[in-house]
Amino acid sequence: MTRVAIIGAGQTPFGVRPDATLKGLFAAAVEAAVGDVQRGLDPQEIEEAHIGSLATGGSQLGNFGPLMAESAGLTGAAAQRVENACASSGFAFRDAVMAVASGRVRFALAGGIEKMSDLPRARNRGWLGVSGDVEWERLAGTNFPGIYAMIARRHMYEHGTTRGQIAGVAVKNRRHAVANPKAQLRKPLGLEDALAAPMLAEPLGFCDACGITDGASAVILCRWDDARALTDKPVEVVGSGAGSDVVALHDRAVYTRLDAVRQAARQAYAGAEVGPADIDVAEVHDCFTIAELLAYADLGFCSEAEAGRLVDGGETHLGGRLPVNVSGGLIAKGHPIGATGTGQISELVHQLRGTVAETERQVPGARYGLAHNVGGSGGSAAVHILKAPA
Amino acid sequence: MTRVAIIGAGQTPFGVRPDATLKGLFAAAVEAAVGDVQRGLDPQEIEEAHIGSLATGGSQLGNFGPLMAESAGLTGAAAQRVENACASSGFAFRDAVMAVASGRVRFALAGGIEKMSDLPRARNRGWLGVSGDVEWERLAGTNFPGIYAMIARRHMYEHGTTRGQIAGVAVKNRRHAVANPKAQLRKPLGLEDALAAPMLAEPLGFCDACGITDGASAVILCRWDDARALTDKPVEVVGSGAGSDVVALHDRAVYTRLDAVRQAARQAYAGAEVGPADIDVAEVHDCFTIAELLAYADLGFCSEAEAGRLVDGGETHLGGRLPVNVSGGLIAKGHPIGATGTGQISELVHQLRGTVAETERQVPGARYGLAHNVGGSGGSAAVHILKAPA
Repeated sequence: MTRVAIIGAGQTPFGVRPDATLKGLFAAAVEAAVGDVQRGLDPQEIEEAHIGSLATGGSQLGNFGPLMAESAGLTGAAAQRVENACASSGFAFRDAVMAVASGRVRFALAGGIEKMSDLPRARNRGWLGVSGDVEWERLAGTNFPGIYAMIARRHMYEHGTTRGQIAGVAVKNRRHAVANPKAQLRKPLGLEDALAAPMLAEPLGFCDACGITDGASAVILCRWDDARALTDKPVEVVGSGAGSDVVALHDRAVYTRLDAVRQAARQAYAGAEVGPADIDVAEVHDCFTIAELLAYADLGFCSEAEAGRLVDGGETHLGGRLPVNVSGGLIAKGHPIGATGTGQISELVHQLRGTVAETERQVPGARYGLAHNVGGSGGSAAVHILKAPA
Repeated sequence: MTRVAIIGAGQTPFGVRPDATLKGLFAAAVEAAVGDVQRGLDPQEIEEAHIGSLATGGSQLGNFGPLMAESAGLTGAAAQRVENACASSGFAFRDAVMAVASGRVRFALAGGIEKMSDLPRARNRGWLGVSGDVEWERLAGTNFPGIYAMIARRHMYEHGTTRGQIAGVAVKNRRHAVANPKAQLRKPLGLEDALAAPMLAEPLGFCDACGITDGASAVILCRWDDARALTDKPVEVVGSGAGSDVVALHDRAVYTRLDAVRQAARQAYAGAEVGPADIDVAEVHDCFTIAELLAYADLGFCSEAEAGRLVDGGETHLGGRLPVNVSGGLIAKGHPIGATGTGQISELVHQLRGTVAETERQVPGARYGLAHNVGGSGGSAAVHILKAPA
């Protein structure tokens, strides 16, 4: 099987960017990724562009991939858009991995873009609910805060997880983001303030959720054998997994685990020939605080009952055994939906190379990194494992 | 490189289906494809589902892939939606080809679905224009009939193509559809009636355009080495090509060719190690009559100036040297946008096996079949070449 490497990775700053256009944001992310290829790459050599976006800024319904590729100057690339809700660019990345692994494509780009602030009713998130099951959830009045609140309640009931442990995820990720100039929320958050924030859907408050974010990200892939000529530090994609599940929560036997993630993780670990204990740094999909606790168990880092203690005990903090969301995660770095998956990959590439610009948030000596990207409330998930340059 | 085979293919009837649901239509297409695997396949064995759709019925914005997979009982598949305007399932098919070719996926499904009749203002096609360039074309009032009319005008001016030759495409494809029970328009059309139809955008009339259509299609792929155990007649995917281009017409140097198609065709022919003269049957993207004439030259069947004469002279009619759109094409079989690409593949699979149910429209002894799927007005294109079982 053809081995796959990442040779360039970048992203725009995440945040509310009323000044930026969709085209400009995506072009900036591609420019960052191309500029990150150590010995240079002519963007014309990129043969495929797989671009994740959920809502395409709300104006351009179709042919969004080619339009974005054109704006970024990728004139030699066959472009396509992948939509898998919040996992759009996780799946776009997987498609690019497969294309290179097939031996038929030499250079592929995977990226993502979302301009949430341009969307109708973005502020009240009405449109976001249509990434759950519209027929059974959205039309009954449930939205994502409500769905994740039900999951959180069940987690507390089943596993004794505390409200403080859940909010602790936000405190951790907000602290991590302080040192990340690309993050949206760089002001630290105390646990008391997190608990005192206005209620969103009991038990989740305002600080347990990610916000409205604009941004774009991109990474460039090629065959492992070609990578050395272009960079001294190729990062290998050693494991790629993807899964789906029933979209509506009420159709699931258990609320406190996401089977799509477990399926994706099994594939990714098997491909990488490593296990959860080998992972040194992870970017996980904390669209809500509780989602990060689900991830810990779904990815095999611990049991469901132990998840809360991984935050409490400092294990997943920067400096801990397995730092999670050193970037700030979705909650603090930001969650421009389609851009999140390849944004996670981009962060891991720099972590694994040991070239994070802000040395205080560099995880030292990390060998394996894991990216976990979830669509909606677990209807789909992509998990990737990357390996540091030798 | 791992060789890729198609082992099952099917589609729903295309037409306006107010009775049908999105979920039911897609499930029916998957059932047809699974049922078409000669020695049977447990749908649970399908590991990936790549699903093309432009507008997802207008209600379910995100996570559409998993929702469709769930409704079709593909509970073991990681599902994703691909959106490339009218080429959505041509690109979904390519992703499935790459996944199998990578050696990492055993069984993949590619399909497409569109329920255009549910869309807001579907009747006046207002929403379709947003698959062109919204900023420069749609907001200036241009829509797809207008864009293809400009192309047609230029073709007539540059190459002496006649109005009768253009309308002749509709006459041919409508005649082909008479024998296809899955086609939307099965009433033959005379040239005089075609020319007398109400004007859409000069010189194109109502009969030069495809209509509003609901439908779904699906095909199942696996490694060539696994295919023989499941069917005596595997169809090989010998060539896969994809391309993109600037989305807005006014950005192109020449109006009468689609560079995205030429790029895709080059790749597909090179992969298949055949040339245009080797193709025995083709399904091409006749969203408007003029588009089929563009396809003839873009695919290398003839020069631009000769395109009109291929219809005139009967060469691309059933019984001619290279029958094109024996299914009825987009104009008469119908164009449920996201379902068109894998609908074309499905038609070719049955043609190449020699198992078209209606013997009067079976192309005898065809060895190579070509599918040509275009996004919007040429912003993207996918071309695939299939080879008949030995």
